[in-house]
This record gives sequence, C-alpha cells and structure tokens, in this order.
Amino acid sequence: MNTDKILLDHGSGGRASHKLITELILHYFSNPILNEMNDSATFSMNGGRLAFSTDSYTVDPIFFPGGDIGELAINGTVNDLAMSGAIPLYLSVGFIIEEGFPIADLEKILISMNRAAEEANVKIVTGDTKVVPKHAADKIFINTSGIGTIPDSVDISGKNGKPGDKILISGTIADHGITILTQREGLKFDSPLQSDSAPLNRMVAEMMTVSKQIHVLRDPTRGGVGTTLNEIASQSNVGMILFEEQLPMQEEVSGACELLGLDPLYLANEGKLLAVVSENDAAKILETIQKNKYGKEAAIIGEVVENNPGKVFIKTSIGGTRIVDMLTGEQLPRIC
Amino acid sequence: MNTDKILLDHGSGGRASHKLITELILHYFSNPILNEMNDSATFSMNGGRLAFSTDSYTVDPIFFPGGDIGELAINGTVNDLAMSGAIPLYLSVGFIIEEGFPIADLEKILISMNRAAEEANVKIVTGDTKVVPKHAADKIFINTSGIGTIPDSVDISGKNGKPGDKILISGTIADHGITILTQREGLKFDSPLQSDSAPLNRMVAEMMTVSKQIHVLRDPTRGGVGTTLNEIASQSNVGMILFEEQLPMQEEVSGACELLGLDPLYLANEGKLLAVVSENDAAKILETIQKNKYGKEAAIIGEVVENNPGKVFIKTSIGGTRIVDMLTGEQLPRIC
Repeated sequence: MNTDKILLDHGSGGRASHKLITELILHYFSNPILNEMNDSATFSMNGGRLAFSTDSYTVDPIFFPGGDIGELAINGTVNDLAMSGAIPLYLSVGFIIEEGFPIADLEKILISMNRAAEEANVKIVTGDTKVVPKHAADKIFINTSGIGTIPDSVDISGKNGKPGDKILISGTIADHGITILTQREGLKFDSPLQSDSAPLNRMVAEMMTVSKQIHVLRDPTRGGVGTTLNEIASQSNVGMILFEEQLPMQEEVSGACELLGLDPLYLANEGKLLAVVSENDAAKILETIQKNKYGKEAAIIGEVVENNPGKVFIKTSIGGTRIVDMLTGEQLPRIC
Repeated sequence: MNTDKILLDHGSGGRASHKLITELILHYFSNPILNEMNDSATFSMNGGRLAFSTDSYTVDPIFFPGGDIGELAINGTVNDLAMSGAIPLYLSVGFIIEEGFPIADLEKILISMNRAAEEANVKIVTGDTKVVPKHAADKIFINTSGIGTIPDSVDISGKNGKPGDKILISGTIADHGITILTQREGLKFDSPLQSDSAPLNRMVAEMMTVSKQIHVLRDPTRGGVGTTLNEIASQSNVGMILFEEQLPMQEEVSGACELLGLDPLYLANEGKLLAVVSENDAAKILETIQKNKYGKEAAIIGEVVENNPGKVFIKTSIGGTRIVDMLTGEQLPRIC
C-alpha cells in the first residue's frame, strides 16, 4: 500500500505535479483525448471541433493588486481555451465558500467575474454553489470550466514545435507570481507590483488572422515560463534555447526576485502566452501581438533546436549557457 | 454596504440557496441560457444542441457505504446532463487537495471515478489539480463539469410541467442523505444504510425511447424531493399534489428519519430522478423505469394541478393535506 502523502509540491505545476498527473491520474483516466495533455481537451462534436477546459482557483489573498480570484478564474479558463486556438464561448462556475464569508466580498467577486466575462466575450451559463463549515475551506475557491469552438484549419498543440521555430512571449514575465508573493509576505515596494491577469483570446484571434504557422500556444501560469517550455520541449521532442537578454521583465519584478532569491522563470503569469511559430512568420506574428493592448512588451525569446530533445537551455547575459529544468519544489502555494 | 455573511443554509439547496442564486448570482451573471435554471445549460453549437453542467463535491465523509466522493462526482454530473435529456459524453475533473492527503486515498478515489465513468460511458478528457496548505481545505474537494449532446426532438425543462401530468420517482427516497448523516454521527443501524449514488443516463435514454411526453426531469439531490418539486412547480407555474402513501422509502430510512427527527422529503438522493410526464404515457414510462436496475422501486407519487401555482401539497396517509415548502435551514452541510 502506498503510504505517501500529497505535498504542496504536487500542486506547484512543476516536476512533482507532472509526475502525479502522468503516473497516477493518467494511469486511471487514460484516453486519447486526455493523453494529449494540452491546456484544453479538443474533440469533434456535432460535426465541428470543440475545446473543453477546467481549472480551480485557490489564490491567496483573494483580492490583490491587478485583480482578484474571480477575474483570475474567468481569464484563466478563457486563456486555456484560447491556447488551443479555440474561440471561448461558454463558462461554468462552481463556488466552494466557507461559512461566514462576507456576502459583500462575494458580490465584489461576482462583479469582477462579470466584467471579465464581458471583456472576453464569454457567457457564464451554468453554475453551482457549495458552502462548507468554518475551517473546512479557506474563504472561497472557484472552479471554472469552459467550452469553445476551434476553426477548421487550426492545428495548435504542444506536440507541434519544430526545429527552426521561434519562441515568442507576449510580455513581461513573473508579474502575477511576484505580486501574490509580496502581498502575502506584506512586503512593500516603491512601484507597486501588479498581477498581469488578462484575457488573451482576442490576441490569439489576431495572431491566427496573420499566420497559419502558429504551432504551439500555451500560457505559462503555475510553474512559469521555465516549466511550460519544458513541457512543450518534451511533448514536441525538441530542444529549446532561450536568450536571457531578450526576456521582457519589469525592473521592479527583477528587483523583487533578486531580493527574495526567486527565479522569475518559475513564477506564474496570468496574462501572457508563449507561442512557438515558424521562423518565416515570427516577425509578423510578433508585430501583431505588440499591437494588442496586452502584448506591447512582446518579444522573441528563443528558438527550437534539434539537439537535446526535451531539454531547455538559456544563454545568460554574461555569455554562459545553463539548463532550465522543470520547477522542483514549491516556491509558492496558492498562486492561482 | 452588505455586512451579511454566507451561512451553511446558503449551500443547503433550499430556500436560502435559491435566494442567493436568484437575487445575487443571477443579478450579475444574467443571460438567457443561465436564467433557465435547469440542471444543465442547453444551447446550440456547430448546428446541434449541447448540454453543459458543473458541480463541486465536498461530501464528508469522503468514503461512505454505497460510494465515495469520486463516484458521486461522476454520477452527479452525468445525472445533471441526463436531466436535460442529453447523452453525457465528456467530463472535466478539478481536484482541490489538502496538503498531507494520503495518496492511497486519492488512488481509491481515482479508481472509483474511473469505474463510474466506464459505467456511465463518459470520458474524462481534461483536468486540474490544486494542492492547498494544511487546514486550507478539508481533505479533498472535486469539481466535475460535463458536456452532452441533446437529440433534436427533445424538449425537457423545468418549465414544461402541465396540469394533468403525473409525477414519477425512480425509487426510494432519502437514502443518500440519511446514510451520510448517520455516518457522520457515528450511529449504527442493524441493516446498514447505503447511498443510492448511481448514473441515470441509461434510464433516461430508455424512457425517451418509449415516450415523447417527458416534460420535466430532475434529480432531487440537495434539498431533496420537497425542494426540487417546489422549484419545478415554480418554474412551470403549476401546483402539485403528492400522495404520501405512494412515496417509496426503505424501512430503515424511514426508521432513522423518525429517530433523528428528519423529514425524508428534504434529504438528498444521488441516484434518483423525478419525472413529470403526460398522463397518457405515465404507465409505460413507469414500466420502463422499473425495468432498469436503478428503477425497480419506481412509483407514480403525485400529479400536477392548475390550482395553487408554485405550491406543492402532500396528502398524508392519515387523510390530511399539508403544504410541502422548500427546505429552510440546513439539515446537513456537505451532503454532496
């Protein structure tokens, strides 16, 4: 009998999460759709293709600079759908609320969910509310699941990266992770840090208009850019090289990471996407992202190579090269 | 500013839940699909009709006679989809797990979810796992969302009840609720009580084969038969009369309810459906339900009337008539 216990690390989005999912959960639930392991499941239905995705949100604190748990729950599932090239349409919402939770706070969350749903142009069509006794849950948890339609010609998947492809990011990294961490520790910085929580479905639609050569899309949430690229490298069986100097990062974020000894490559983003695209189309895709209001700081940060399949390397600004592994250990529980 | 707090009663499935949902949640999320307030949202997509439903499961204890939280999470969402006449196809699963939860218990839950999914002929196609620190959640919570297709001719909705219709139940009432309660209180009964957790999608498919006159289907979970019929009476703007003598109930359940002072009409069921059907087809629908392995004790328990729209009455076995209101107050938190 297995006497091991679930650790925080199993929810980090890093190596332990990956192991739990691939070795235990996939072992029991295995089927061709689930086994694809993309941000959304994709399948045919009524003669068209659909994307279906789910995420539970347990972020602490529930209100933070740049957003709250409600906005995060809408944007997060909208983005997971968009990362398969889908047009997000319908969301479900499941609340688990601790007895004694202020109704005024619930109302603030509902207002921000509604605002986020309107911005992303999705409808909340079904829901569920559970209340658990005091201390059986911490304040409020929200699950959102979502459905979107995938246009016929679209084929975006973690396994589609090819040697020669360019790796793009839609903006500065680590904003959400560092914001939540500093909030929780009660640290104050001169320039207030803000979560980057944002819906990316319009950006993806714009990208798809200018190019048919978008191979992979993924939003680097839990586990950060480092872990997400490792997942793609492994699914596509390719190597990756990043250029540290090209990584967009706000000065305050970089300063806070140094101060706290955190690697921004492993901190969560909630309004950024990574795109792996053909070299030929990279420039025009970059330009398109930069025209979107959530993509002004977008950059090409690396390239896909044949060597070292499944591995990600970074060329540092002082000229060295180091390996970027999956996140090991939990930097920060309840980041999203 | 609203200084009220969320109470356990807000999660009971009864009057307070109804008020929270209609006055607060629908106020912010209002749209024609959500406002239908059926167990599933239904809408057109890719030229066909889909059902989409979500539920979070917080039952305590997580293992109980007749099932566990995992089986409940699969059957519950399968049933919600089936209650709109849909064929359930794809499920998502979102786990929120407390740090320190035994992996062996998670494995038992995964096995029973897989078994339940196989029996209901649905696939788990996407998922999410969050781990929260010790004491931030009690053991494990599971959200499942699901998608199904609705055959073209089907029109089943809470608003379709008509005077003259018969009200059917697919078996004995209150089995799940009383089982959880006695487990929690550590009460022992001679004949062990068991949850009725079961998938009802095959039963619904069989019913639809013999009749086009199924007006309403709903599974009386939280809030029980009493609350569920009140919801239907109100949505259809009709009255209802139940016959106490016709209500199927196990002797042990009835005994336990008497002992504990609980009204079985408000106790949760997790493998039963209520059907409101045309008088003409009632007998053959009943016969069809009784042929299903989960429907042996099915019975016609009442009828829809024109008088007293929105109200449910019961003719008691000693000849009186009393009103059956929605559940008020929470009999039992974390029943599902």
